[in-house]
Amino acid sequence: MSRRGVTVWFTGLSGAGKTTLSCGVAQQLRAWGLPVEVLDGDLVRQHLTKGLGFSKADRDENIRRIGFVAEMLTRHGVIVLVSAISPYRAVRQEVRQYIGNFIEVFVDAPLEVCERRDVKGLYRKARAGLIQHFTGIDDPYEPPEQPEVVCKTAEQSISECIDLVMQSLKSRGYL
Amino acid sequence: MSRRGVTVWFTGLSGAGKTTLSCGVAQQLRAWGLPVEVLDGDLVRQHLTKGLGFSKADRDENIRRIGFVAEMLTRHGVIVLVSAISPYRAVRQEVRQYIGNFIEVFVDAPLEVCERRDVKGLYRKARAGLIQHFTGIDDPYEPPEQPEVVCKTAEQSISECIDLVMQSLKSRGYL
Repeated sequence: MSRRGVTVWFTGLSGAGKTTLSCGVAQQLRAWGLPVEVLDGDLVRQHLTKGLGFSKADRDENIRRIGFVAEMLTRHGVIVLVSAISPYRAVRQEVRQYIGNFIEVFVDAPLEVCERRDVKGLYRKARAGLIQHFTGIDDPYEPPEQPEVVCKTAEQSISECIDLVMQSLKSRGYL
Repeated sequence: MSRRGVTVWFTGLSGAGKTTLSCGVAQQLRAWGLPVEVLDGDLVRQHLTKGLGFSKADRDENIRRIGFVAEMLTRHGVIVLVSAISPYRAVRQEVRQYIGNFIEVFVDAPLEVCERRDVKGLYRKARAGLIQHFTGIDDPYEPPEQPEVVCKTAEQSISECIDLVMQSLKSRGYL
């Protein structure tokens, strides 16, 4: 009851480093004994949003459901780390308002870098036309206008990026 | 952190008194300053499970999603009160295993009583054939075999039933 919860929302292209970063932050927070929950886009799609596709309407519904769960956990004092492409500005704004205690982390890496990394082999498939509606290829990504944190994962190390997020939590009184 | 969370799962026919009961329990727990979340079947269908229908597969998916969220909240020390018809025994068993700290409350009222109450006017519609797959009319309800609590809402008062649930939370060390 005493702790103030918060949602830290990692947005960015596939391969930008959202999952790596959110897991790194989670690990540090857990080491301090803090209550943490990671809501990863891929995992969430298996559980909460099975059956949703990648149209704008389905993507927005996906984000709203994550927001619905994140809000409840935040209200109960949990530090919720959401890792989801969440390409549309308007619905990110909507969940920000809905949740209240909210830190937006723009995981910012150039498309070329993400495509070169291609951790999941998805860019290759998208370029080959095997996947449609792929963010950055044939689907839009609207970068945040005023994110609380920007992590340039092509230029900064993972630990530098983790530090930026931790600093942001500290300076806002969440730690 | 310190508190042990638990999910209290109210199952029973439409009109049996699940929502009344879970709200009554929530009120008592909140008055003691305890962290409580009510996941009501109707509300959840607007947020987490929009688009799901009332086939067995969709009902099971509905219950699994509620279970997914209830588990997270439970793990973070929240007392989660789920109010959902949840007519199928197997998937109730599944979420029980998944969540771990689990109290099943069978809100047990005879169909005739629920139909006479008909708070939402749904039985009338189901009898008139305007709603299909209505639990108790043309869809099955499988009563729990070994619920932790049975509330006979046609015979016991609301406050007696609330007391039964509170006793059950106390005797298991959740309060």
